[in-house]
Amino acid sequence: MAAPAVVLLSGGLDSATALAIAREKGFACHALSVDYGQRHVAELSAARRVADACGAHEHRLMRVDLAGIGGSALTDKGLAVPEAPTVGIPVTYVPARNTIMLSLALAWAEVLDAEDIFIGVNVLDASGYPDCRPEFIAAFGALAALATKAGVEGRACRMHAPLIALTKAEIIREGIRLGVDYALTVSCYQADEEGRACGRCDACRFRRAGFSAAAVPDPTRYR
Amino acid sequence: MAAPAVVLLSGGLDSATALAIAREKGFACHALSVDYGQRHVAELSAARRVADACGAHEHRLMRVDLAGIGGSALTDKGLAVPEAPTVGIPVTYVPARNTIMLSLALAWAEVLDAEDIFIGVNVLDASGYPDCRPEFIAAFGALAALATKAGVEGRACRMHAPLIALTKAEIIREGIRLGVDYALTVSCYQADEEGRACGRCDACRFRRAGFSAAAVPDPTRYR
Repeated sequence: MAAPAVVLLSGGLDSATALAIAREKGFACHALSVDYGQRHVAELSAARRVADACGAHEHRLMRVDLAGIGGSALTDKGLAVPEAPTVGIPVTYVPARNTIMLSLALAWAEVLDAEDIFIGVNVLDASGYPDCRPEFIAAFGALAALATKAGVEGRACRMHAPLIALTKAEIIREGIRLGVDYALTVSCYQADEEGRACGRCDACRFRRAGFSAAAVPDPTRYR
Repeated sequence: MAAPAVVLLSGGLDSATALAIAREKGFACHALSVDYGQRHVAELSAARRVADACGAHEHRLMRVDLAGIGGSALTDKGLAVPEAPTVGIPVTYVPARNTIMLSLALAWAEVLDAEDIFIGVNVLDASGYPDCRPEFIAAFGALAALATKAGVEGRACRMHAPLIALTKAEIIREGIRLGVDYALTVSCYQADEEGRACGRCDACRFRRAGFSAAAVPDPTRYR
């Protein structure tokens, strides 16, 4: 029987690729999406389609209301999503988002007796979010070993961030090799209800440049 | 102006005391309670009363559905709450609960520009939960410094667990000194809707023994 793994699945390009990689490694993938009050809620429908298409064992949606505390252009509609590069960590950063998501993944992993968690973060061709860096992932792994009954009892909790050092083009080429249908994914921070992209936000720019650099036709539906 | 702090507030005896300690240190306390699908939902009404009585600056309730994944007697009504001491980490342990709660506190702290987070965990006179140990709290502090924009930009994120090495009796004496009204708090894992305690679960036993050892009248309402 395939070992279970929890795979964080946003519905974007990176996490779809991480899911395909986890699947290729032979894991039974329990995909977890989080509705945190993001404005680009179309990514959650995309996540469901991606989970189905990539052969996830199951797909779970958890809700946490981060919009109530605000502090990010992704959760506060009063803050505009930048449509040109900005200096430093952009306003689309969501406070502690990946810490929260990994915590939820850790909880589910413990219930499933899963020793492996996958997350599709990467540091290159990305926005400089602090919780996408290797040192953050390593620190979460150290925490996980201490945080759970499973850890105390000697079960492992391995954090996998297989895209962390890849460029967007390399991620896309790996996904294509694994049969990911990127037309199903939604990366845009201000995607409309149909999942159509703006083409101007950071997420769109990195994605578009990635397809271009990979010399792969861009299947993104722009509005 | 008082510096802001986020204080995790379950509505039980320990977190009420942690709130009183944070208040005495001069912080403007932003109390955070989490509805995670716990069976003893009366603790959340207790949390609101405690926040009011202890002079919290504000009180926020966040929801995360951990009952959906189960794995604990506190979230799965199909599992009985033990009414006698058990060996090892008991079934009332909720997978990754404190990791999730601290993550939510971290997110809110970042939005508030708060550099201090309080949590009322303790290792003595408690159930041996892994996420109540000093090494867990230290690991979360290390993670927090790497996880946030605030941390990257050099702001501190101090984790305070002022009860961690106290006995239940010491906690109670400290709270009495600070004017905590323990009649408002609910510790019982299977409190009824009125907040009345069973008197038999681990939480009740540790609480009752604490009042006894502190030689303080026990204000708990038993059913």
